[in-house]
Amino acid sequence: MPLGEKKLIQQIRRLSGKTSALVTGIGDDCAVLRVRHGHEFLVTTDFSIENIHFRRDWHPPEFVGHRCLTRGLSDIAAMGGIPLAAFLSLALPPDAQQKWVDRFLDGLLDLAREYNVPLAGGDTAQSNHGILADIVVVGSVPRGRAILRCGARPGDSIYVTGTLGAAAAALTRLRQARSSQLPRLRAQFARIFKPQPRLAVGQFLRRRSLASSMIDISDGLSSDLDHICQESKVAAELGESLIPRAKFAADFASNDFALNGGDDYELLFTSARPVPSKIAGLPVARIGRIVRGQGMRLISVNGESRTLAPRGWQHFQNGS
Amino acid sequence: MPLGEKKLIQQIRRLSGKTSALVTGIGDDCAVLRVRHGHEFLVTTDFSIENIHFRRDWHPPEFVGHRCLTRGLSDIAAMGGIPLAAFLSLALPPDAQQKWVDRFLDGLLDLAREYNVPLAGGDTAQSNHGILADIVVVGSVPRGRAILRCGARPGDSIYVTGTLGAAAAALTRLRQARSSQLPRLRAQFARIFKPQPRLAVGQFLRRRSLASSMIDISDGLSSDLDHICQESKVAAELGESLIPRAKFAADFASNDFALNGGDDYELLFTSARPVPSKIAGLPVARIGRIVRGQGMRLISVNGESRTLAPRGWQHFQNGS
Repeated sequence: MPLGEKKLIQQIRRLSGKTSALVTGIGDDCAVLRVRHGHEFLVTTDFSIENIHFRRDWHPPEFVGHRCLTRGLSDIAAMGGIPLAAFLSLALPPDAQQKWVDRFLDGLLDLAREYNVPLAGGDTAQSNHGILADIVVVGSVPRGRAILRCGARPGDSIYVTGTLGAAAAALTRLRQARSSQLPRLRAQFARIFKPQPRLAVGQFLRRRSLASSMIDISDGLSSDLDHICQESKVAAELGESLIPRAKFAADFASNDFALNGGDDYELLFTSARPVPSKIAGLPVARIGRIVRGQGMRLISVNGESRTLAPRGWQHFQNGS
Repeated sequence: MPLGEKKLIQQIRRLSGKTSALVTGIGDDCAVLRVRHGHEFLVTTDFSIENIHFRRDWHPPEFVGHRCLTRGLSDIAAMGGIPLAAFLSLALPPDAQQKWVDRFLDGLLDLAREYNVPLAGGDTAQSNHGILADIVVVGSVPRGRAILRCGARPGDSIYVTGTLGAAAAALTRLRQARSSQLPRLRAQFARIFKPQPRLAVGQFLRRRSLASSMIDISDGLSSDLDHICQESKVAAELGESLIPRAKFAADFASNDFALNGGDDYELLFTSARPVPSKIAGLPVARIGRIVRGQGMRLISVNGESRTLAPRGWQHFQNGS
């Protein structure tokens, strides 16, 4: 086993947490979890695979660990849920260094502590090639109150939190960079590569019954809005100028990063009611509306309308 | 993406099931699950990695899919739990064939249907090298009734279901085989490589309050008994002649397969009360007893006692 699997096991057990929801954590065949009376249970799983979701030479290990858990927490946020526990399955290749694993776990567990989510189990294994993590996050939501993708109705407005496109623009910049530029760029992109799960926004929308449908933007706005349209059997019109582009993404000529870039982990939701322009300190922008029919259209400032195809990543998932 | 990830997504969605516990399955950010009032949730995760847990030239894809799910269901069985839903994360390398994936899913879903466990989500991704599956199984158990590893007490007897060592012996036989012998051996080992999760036994023991501690034998008897001893802070004595060796394993001179071989997925438990010699049609053997102290000892027929070291696989886990 690389690095001594036993050592890794002990390391993770030491770092694992305990909460009232987690009755039994690491050290048994299953974790045992308790949800509040009248609550339902949420489950989501997300891969983080080397050279697919991250590169060891581009992404500092703390960021890989942070984003690995953000991917799961963001899915809980998109249901309006409360996270209860995380499970990490980690496969390491022979060339993985103990230092890398230490820093990966630091990043993951810093975020876990921030949201009071104990690491409650998982699995370790040797991988043939490349680091592979699979994160499972479980959460809860009051019965019947989970915000699904299928509730959007014609006439609803479409909203998005924060700004879009920075993660995809940063990857493009890294792809173009010489290796001597990488250290400076890695530092510059620190905030971009440590996305925050929008749990407070999701829970606010659920408590106020404000969202008719919701998804997190992990694949890209065009693909994730398409998921809402498909599941809700509706169409969408987006105002091109209304899409909040990240400042860094706006430096590029193309609008593609904001429309099709993944890894933003902002929330995309629909509502029939007025929505505050700021929720939990985060700007919320109205970017379009749900209409009858099929497909998506992008409306330019001068009123020209064109088809918007889903061009982000495709998954089968819960957990995209 | 290998094989067209979109096609795989659609394939898995078509195959996914629906039950009263699964409120929302594949097609949203999270699955939503409901448990009976007064029940707790169980969660377990298990890797199945090519060349670590299986080999494409040794294990027919149906068997790999079957055992992938058995690993998770067996952990639910070891808590005395009822399985509710499974989540499959599947990373495929460029050289994976659609036919292999079809047969893998057939094997997994045949077993899922047998135990009425819907496939409720997961993730897909491209892998750099080798097939990698991570299975999550969620279950439930009446509050406070999960059978843990930490409840064994001095004076308890130690029991095991079925027979041990066949899977490890079969792997050894495959390792020694010429490639021309592989087809015949694969057929011969069909039953060995499709282990059944002992859910009925686990639930029987929980309902009758018969087991003081329980674990499934996935790493090997010596390691899994050591887990019980460590968590319960007790020692164990095993009668060497009492261990039920699988007929195929008994053909080999060594006793190692039954003591240290993994992948049997039988249940190992302790009890202060008399236990039936057959539960749910499966033989149950008394193999030793729990005593005060630390460590494990193996007692031979002529009364000689020697130290038994944990020599199976090591994991950190829930889900080993």
